[in-house]
Amino acid sequence: MSAWADELKWNAEGLVPAVAQDATTGKVLTVAWMNREALEETVRRGEAVYWSRSRGRLWRKGEQSGHVQKLRELRLDCDADALLLRVEQVAGIACHTGHERCFFRRLENGRWVETDPVLKDPAEIYRK
Amino acid sequence: MSAWADELKWNAEGLVPAVAQDATTGKVLTVAWMNREALEETVRRGEAVYWSRSRGRLWRKGEQSGHVQKLRELRLDCDADALLLRVEQVAGIACHTGHERCFFRRLENGRWVETDPVLKDPAEIYRK
Repeated sequence: MSAWADELKWNAEGLVPAVAQDATTGKVLTVAWMNREALEETVRRGEAVYWSRSRGRLWRKGEQSGHVQKLRELRLDCDADALLLRVEQVAGIACHTGHERCFFRRLENGRWVETDPVLKDPAEIYRK
Repeated sequence: MSAWADELKWNAEGLVPAVAQDATTGKVLTVAWMNREALEETVRRGEAVYWSRSRGRLWRKGEQSGHVQKLRELRLDCDADALLLRVEQVAGIACHTGHERCFFRRLENGRWVETDPVLKDPAEIYRK
Protein backbone atom coordinates (compact mmCIF):
# COMPACT_ATOMS: atom_id res chain seq x y z
CA MET A 1 0.00 0.00 0.00
CA SER A 2 1.29 3.40 -0.97
CA ALA A 3 0.96 6.46 1.24
CA TRP A 4 0.69 8.71 -1.82
CA ALA A 5 -2.39 6.79 -2.96
CA ASP A 6 -4.09 7.58 0.36
CA GLU A 7 -4.31 11.20 -0.71
CA LEU A 8 -6.78 10.49 -3.49
CA LYS A 9 -10.48 11.04 -3.02
CA TRP A 10 -12.09 8.04 -4.65
CA ASN A 11 -15.76 8.28 -5.58
CA ALA A 12 -18.52 6.06 -4.17
CA GLU A 13 -17.43 3.28 -6.54
CA GLY A 14 -13.78 3.64 -5.51
CA LEU A 15 -12.81 5.29 -8.81
CA VAL A 16 -11.35 8.52 -10.16
CA PRO A 17 -11.24 9.71 -13.78
CA ALA A 18 -7.83 9.46 -15.43
CA VAL A 19 -6.98 11.56 -18.47
CA ALA A 20 -4.27 10.20 -20.77
CA GLN A 21 -2.39 12.79 -22.78
CA ASP A 22 0.19 12.07 -25.46
CA ALA A 23 3.48 13.35 -24.02
CA THR A 24 4.82 14.17 -27.47
CA THR A 25 1.90 15.75 -29.31
CA GLY A 26 -0.02 17.03 -26.28
CA LYS A 27 -3.24 15.52 -27.65
CA VAL A 28 -5.75 14.26 -25.11
CA LEU A 29 -6.14 10.59 -25.99
CA THR A 30 -8.61 9.05 -23.56
CA VAL A 31 -10.57 9.51 -20.38
CA ALA A 32 -10.73 6.28 -18.41
CA TRP A 33 -11.15 5.26 -14.77
CA MET A 34 -8.82 3.95 -12.12
CA ASN A 35 -9.34 2.33 -8.77
CA ARG A 36 -6.53 2.18 -6.23
CA GLU A 37 -5.24 -1.15 -7.50
CA ALA A 38 -5.11 0.12 -11.09
CA LEU A 39 -3.29 3.26 -10.03
CA GLU A 40 -0.71 1.41 -7.95
CA GLU A 41 -0.10 -1.09 -10.74
CA THR A 42 0.23 1.76 -13.26
CA VAL A 43 3.02 3.30 -11.21
CA ARG A 44 4.69 -0.04 -10.49
CA ARG A 45 4.68 -1.16 -14.14
CA GLY A 46 5.15 2.24 -15.71
CA GLU A 47 2.24 1.47 -18.02
CA ALA A 48 -1.37 2.58 -17.83
CA VAL A 49 -3.75 0.19 -16.08
CA TYR A 50 -7.38 1.23 -15.82
CA TRP A 51 -10.54 -0.12 -14.26
CA SER A 52 -12.96 -1.25 -16.92
CA ARG A 53 -16.43 -0.35 -15.69
CA SER A 54 -18.10 -2.33 -18.48
CA ARG A 55 -16.08 -5.47 -17.81
CA GLY A 56 -15.78 -4.99 -14.04
CA ARG A 57 -12.10 -5.82 -13.97
CA LEU A 58 -8.62 -4.34 -14.29
CA TRP A 59 -7.83 -3.34 -17.84
CA ARG A 60 -4.15 -3.38 -18.68
CA LYS A 61 -4.28 -0.91 -21.58
CA GLY A 62 -2.92 -2.68 -24.64
CA GLU A 63 -3.36 -6.17 -23.23
CA GLN A 64 -5.13 -7.26 -26.42
CA SER A 65 -4.15 -4.60 -28.95
CA GLY A 66 -0.54 -4.13 -27.89
CA HIS A 67 -1.30 -0.40 -27.79
CA VAL A 68 0.32 0.13 -24.42
CA GLN A 69 0.57 3.58 -22.83
CA LYS A 70 4.00 4.06 -21.25
CA LEU A 71 3.81 6.39 -18.30
CA ARG A 72 6.02 9.45 -18.55
CA GLU A 73 4.43 11.59 -15.85
CA LEU A 74 1.59 11.29 -13.35
CA ARG A 75 -0.25 14.35 -12.04
CA LEU A 76 -2.98 14.91 -9.47
CA ASP A 77 -5.47 17.77 -9.44
CA CYS A 78 -6.26 20.27 -6.70
CA ASP A 79 -9.19 18.28 -5.32
CA ALA A 80 -7.26 15.00 -5.51
CA ASP A 81 -10.11 13.41 -7.46
CA ALA A 82 -8.72 13.34 -11.01
CA LEU A 83 -5.46 12.08 -12.52
CA LEU A 84 -3.48 13.17 -15.55
CA LEU A 85 -1.15 10.69 -17.23
CA ARG A 86 1.32 11.93 -19.77
CA VAL A 87 2.11 8.89 -21.84
CA GLU A 88 3.99 7.51 -24.78
CA GLN A 89 1.28 5.88 -26.90
CA VAL A 90 2.66 2.73 -28.50
CA ALA A 91 1.69 2.47 -32.20
CA GLY A 92 0.11 5.94 -32.01
CA ILE A 93 -3.36 4.45 -31.54
CA ALA A 94 -5.16 4.94 -28.24
CA CYS A 95 -8.75 4.16 -29.22
CA HIS A 96 -10.35 0.74 -29.70
CA THR A 97 -11.94 2.16 -32.87
CA GLY A 98 -8.49 2.42 -34.47
CA HIS A 99 -8.32 6.20 -34.12
CA GLU A 100 -5.31 7.95 -32.66
CA ARG A 101 -7.48 9.29 -29.84
CA CYS A 102 -10.92 8.66 -28.47
CA PHE A 103 -11.87 12.30 -29.06
CA PHE A 104 -12.13 11.95 -32.83
CA ARG A 105 -15.46 13.82 -33.07
CA ARG A 106 -15.90 17.57 -32.99
CA LEU A 107 -19.08 19.60 -32.68
CA GLU A 108 -19.61 21.56 -35.89
CA ASN A 109 -22.84 23.45 -36.55
CA GLY A 110 -24.87 21.26 -34.25
CA ARG A 111 -23.45 17.92 -35.41
CA TRP A 112 -20.70 15.63 -34.15
CA VAL A 113 -18.31 15.34 -37.07
CA GLU A 114 -15.60 12.70 -37.26
CA THR A 115 -12.45 14.72 -37.95
CA ASP A 116 -9.79 12.06 -37.52
CA PRO A 117 -9.08 9.04 -39.72
CA VAL A 118 -9.14 5.41 -38.63
CA LEU A 119 -5.46 4.44 -38.63
CA LYS A 120 -6.00 0.72 -38.36
CA ASP A 121 -9.06 -1.48 -38.80
CA PRO A 122 -10.22 -2.70 -35.37
CA ALA A 123 -10.76 -6.16 -36.88
CA GLU A 124 -7.05 -6.22 -37.53
CA ILE A 125 -6.11 -4.78 -34.15
CA TYR A 126 -8.10 -7.36 -32.22
CA ARG A 127 -7.79 -10.45 -34.38
CA LYS A 128 -6.50 -13.50 -32.54
CA MET B 1 -33.17 20.95 -26.65
CA SER B 2 -30.32 19.98 -28.93
CA ALA B 3 -30.28 16.77 -30.92
CA TRP B 4 -26.48 16.56 -30.64
CA ALA B 5 -26.79 16.51 -26.85
CA ASP B 6 -29.03 13.43 -27.09
CA GLU B 7 -26.01 11.45 -28.22
CA LEU B 8 -24.25 11.73 -24.87
CA LYS B 9 -24.39 8.93 -22.34
CA TRP B 10 -24.92 10.70 -19.05
CA ASN B 11 -24.10 8.79 -15.87
CA ALA B 12 -26.61 7.91 -13.14
CA GLU B 13 -26.36 11.47 -11.83
CA GLY B 14 -26.89 12.93 -15.29
CA LEU B 15 -23.25 13.99 -15.63
CA VAL B 16 -20.20 13.41 -17.81
CA PRO B 17 -16.59 14.40 -17.09
CA ALA B 18 -15.34 17.37 -19.11
CA VAL B 19 -11.62 17.93 -19.65
CA ALA B 20 -10.53 21.51 -20.32
CA GLN B 21 -7.33 21.89 -22.29
CA ASP B 22 -5.56 25.16 -23.02
CA ALA B 23 -5.88 25.60 -26.79
CA THR B 24 -2.60 27.50 -26.96
CA THR B 25 -0.23 25.60 -24.66
CA GLY B 26 -1.94 22.19 -24.85
CA LYS B 27 -1.83 21.91 -21.06
CA VAL B 28 -4.67 20.02 -19.42
CA LEU B 29 -6.17 22.58 -17.07
CA THR B 30 -9.08 20.97 -15.27
CA VAL B 31 -11.40 18.00 -15.09
CA ALA B 32 -14.90 19.10 -14.17
CA TRP B 33 -18.44 17.80 -14.73
CA MET B 34 -21.31 18.81 -16.96
CA ASN B 35 -24.96 17.98 -17.04
CA ARG B 36 -27.02 18.57 -20.14
CA GLU B 37 -27.98 22.07 -19.14
CA ALA B 38 -24.34 23.03 -18.52
CA LEU B 39 -23.28 21.59 -21.85
CA GLU B 40 -25.98 23.35 -23.82
CA GLU B 41 -25.23 26.64 -22.09
CA THR B 42 -21.50 26.16 -22.76
CA VAL B 43 -22.17 25.87 -26.46
CA ARG B 44 -24.69 28.71 -26.49
CA ARG B 45 -22.45 31.16 -24.61
CA GLY B 46 -19.15 29.93 -26.01
CA GLU B 47 -17.80 29.79 -22.46
CA ALA B 48 -17.38 26.81 -20.16
CA VAL B 49 -20.27 26.13 -17.80
CA TYR B 50 -19.95 23.17 -15.47
CA TRP B 51 -22.09 21.44 -12.89
CA SER B 52 -20.65 21.94 -9.44
CA ARG B 53 -21.16 18.71 -7.56
CA SER B 54 -20.15 20.31 -4.25
CA ARG B 55 -22.54 23.25 -4.63
CA GLY B 56 -25.25 21.34 -6.47
CA ARG B 57 -25.73 24.05 -9.06
CA LEU B 58 -24.51 25.31 -12.42
CA TRP B 59 -21.07 26.81 -12.20
CA ARG B 60 -20.32 29.43 -14.82
CA LYS B 61 -16.55 29.11 -14.81
CA GLY B 62 -15.09 32.50 -13.91
CA GLU B 63 -18.34 33.85 -12.45
CA GLN B 64 -16.48 34.99 -9.32
CA SER B 65 -12.85 35.02 -10.42
CA GLY B 66 -13.31 36.39 -13.92
CA HIS B 67 -11.18 33.46 -15.10
CA VAL B 68 -13.52 32.51 -17.90
CA GLN B 69 -12.73 29.67 -20.32
CA LYS B 70 -13.63 30.67 -23.88
CA LEU B 71 -14.60 27.67 -25.93
CA ARG B 72 -12.54 27.12 -29.03
CA GLU B 73 -13.45 23.50 -29.76
CA LEU B 74 -15.69 20.82 -28.28
CA ARG B 75 -14.95 17.13 -28.74
CA LEU B 76 -16.73 13.93 -27.76
CA ASP B 77 -15.11 10.57 -27.12
CA CYS B 78 -15.83 7.19 -28.68
CA ASP B 79 -18.19 6.08 -25.91
CA ALA B 80 -19.95 9.47 -25.84
CA ASP B 81 -19.41 9.71 -22.12
CA ALA B 82 -16.58 12.24 -21.87
CA LEU B 83 -16.05 15.72 -23.32
CA LEU B 84 -12.93 17.61 -24.28
CA LEU B 85 -13.00 21.41 -24.36
CA ARG B 86 -10.16 23.26 -25.98
CA VAL B 87 -10.31 26.70 -24.40
CA GLU B 88 -8.73 30.07 -24.18
CA GLN B 89 -8.10 30.52 -20.45
CA VAL B 90 -8.63 34.13 -19.47
CA ALA B 91 -5.86 35.46 -17.20
CA GLY B 92 -3.99 32.17 -17.65
CA ILE B 93 -5.32 30.84 -14.34
CA ALA B 94 -7.73 27.90 -14.36
CA CYS B 95 -7.49 26.72 -10.74
CA HIS B 96 -9.18 28.21 -7.68
CA THR B 97 -5.82 27.81 -5.89
CA GLY B 98 -4.31 30.46 -8.18
CA HIS B 99 -2.32 27.94 -10.22
CA GLU B 100 -2.37 27.93 -14.00
CA ARG B 101 -3.89 24.44 -13.95
CA CYS B 102 -5.45 22.15 -11.39
CA PHE B 103 -2.82 19.48 -12.14
CA PHE B 104 -0.01 21.32 -10.33
CA ARG B 105 1.24 18.23 -8.47
CA ARG B 106 3.43 15.50 -9.92
CA LEU B 107 4.30 12.12 -8.42
CA GLU B 108 8.04 12.04 -7.72
CA ASN B 109 9.63 9.18 -5.78
CA GLY B 110 6.42 8.31 -3.97
CA ARG B 111 5.39 11.87 -3.12
CA TRP B 112 3.08 14.43 -4.72
CA VAL B 113 5.30 17.40 -5.41
CA GLU B 114 3.93 20.83 -6.26
CA THR B 115 5.76 21.72 -9.47
CA ASP B 116 3.87 24.86 -10.52
CA PRO B 117 3.84 28.26 -8.86
CA VAL B 118 0.81 30.09 -7.51
CA LEU B 119 0.31 32.90 -10.00
CA LYS B 120 -2.14 34.89 -7.92
CA ASP B 121 -3.17 34.69 -4.27
CA PRO B 122 -6.68 33.18 -4.06
CA ALA B 123 -7.55 35.80 -1.43
CA GLU B 124 -6.98 38.37 -4.12
CA ILE B 125 -8.82 36.39 -6.82
CA TYR B 126 -11.95 35.99 -4.73
CA ARG B 127 -12.07 39.20 -2.75
CA LYS B 128 -15.27 41.13 -3.07
